Amino acid sequence: MKAIVYVGLKPGVLDPQGRTIAGSLQNLGFDEVKSARQGKVIELDLKSENAEAAEARVTEMCEKLLANTVIESYRIEIEA
Amino acid sequence: MKAIVYVGLKPGVLDPQGRTIAGSLQNLGFDEVKSARQGKVIELDLKSENAEAAEARVTEMCEKLLANTVIESYRIEIEA
Repeated sequence: MKAIVYVGLKPGVLDPQGRTIAGSLQNLGFDEVKSARQGKVIELDLKSENAEAAEARVTEMCEKLLANTVIESYRIEIEA
Repeated sequence: MKAIVYVGLKPGVLDPQGRTIAGSLQNLGFDEVKSARQGKVIELDLKSENAEAAEARVTEMCEKLLANTVIESYRIEIEA
């Protein structure tokens, strides 16, 4: 079973990486870029067989390690 | 218009970040984790009005700046 975790900065949290990307794109002539934000995707390969139980466990992984919940939010997708 | 770009290492390319994540999760007691891979998501806010034209431009952005196509692959999603 696969789990895909998307971790991104919460709205309002300053994102210097995103700002650099937007600035660089504009410098390259991509004037249509208004802003950019960068997050991460973590793809987990799991031994679990039960999707619901897997989601609960992956939520625990996010809270404990994968996301810094003070400034980041996360979203989980489970694939069979 | 919004564009979401997913950038990940191509299969076969060593992913030390992903390996560290998998190891740390296992150390925390999440024994069901077989492996992990980490990628990035870039969310772009665009002035463009035409989805097809926007996708072509974002592809160009990926080739020029957002992805290192030697070792990374990318996927683009356009949201109205």
